[in-house]
Amino acid sequence: MRRAPVHASADAAEEAFYDAMRRGDTDALMALWADDEEVACTHPNGARLVGLVAIRASFEQIFSGGGVAVQAVDRRVHEGGLLSVHHLIEQLAVTGRGGAELVECVATNVFVKTVAGWRMVLHHASPLGERAAPAQAGSAPTVLH
Amino acid sequence: MRRAPVHASADAAEEAFYDAMRRGDTDALMALWADDEEVACTHPNGARLVGLVAIRASFEQIFSGGGVAVQAVDRRVHEGGLLSVHHLIEQLAVTGRGGAELVECVATNVFVKTVAGWRMVLHHASPLGERAAPAQAGSAPTVLH
Repeated sequence: MRRAPVHASADAAEEAFYDAMRRGDTDALMALWADDEEVACTHPNGARLVGLVAIRASFEQIFSGGGVAVQAVDRRVHEGGLLSVHHLIEQLAVTGRGGAELVECVATNVFVKTVAGWRMVLHHASPLGERAAPAQAGSAPTVLH
Repeated sequence: MRRAPVHASADAAEEAFYDAMRRGDTDALMALWADDEEVACTHPNGARLVGLVAIRASFEQIFSGGGVAVQAVDRRVHEGGLLSVHHLIEQLAVTGRGGAELVECVATNVFVKTVAGWRMVLHHASPLGERAAPAQAGSAPTVLH
């Protein structure tokens, strides 16, 4: 197993995360995670994976067909010293029945500052429903909660 | 507007969040959020709401039919001094066409330590797909990413 890179910021770790996704590189992607039993990952299909073994297996399966054409846009960041929380939109180019199409997901990525640089502890992605305008109450969706 | 309570821990703030959901109390729920333009909320329908105005409107709509019978279980917590990240399963009792049923969601809740106690900065909930066993690689789902 190759040596994990040391990222000096959560932004750099996140950039490396999406770069590894684009290349379909499981080893590079898993090297970004913290060595912590409580790391958690939820993919857009809704499965909740806890621990590095389950997370690695899920990415191996995702990358079995190659990398994922993904761009992270519209980020909101909350910095808290040892933790950094990023909330963003993932734009994915996927090939569907009708050819290439753009799919958007909402993602929360959480990074922790360790002696080995910034590492990921949580990735939570889910399909984007609608883009609600912040100031328009009428645009609020009908939801369970 | 009533005075916002000061929560001495992120756990207490989260307990108050789900308590407000069960009571369908928008004011109590909104009093838990940080006064921050970047607060973000994603409900299980996938809309991404940024800012207190949009978040309030969404909860007002959710609570228009009353409170939500919700329990938070199986929590994983990452503490970072000023931020606290909680990843958990929400069990919701909803009334569907076939009567009462249990719906499960995955949720990420993030709290920040402020001079007014712990406040919420992010709530990201999405439908739970499957419960994957941590050690079974074969249970990994087929997903976009």
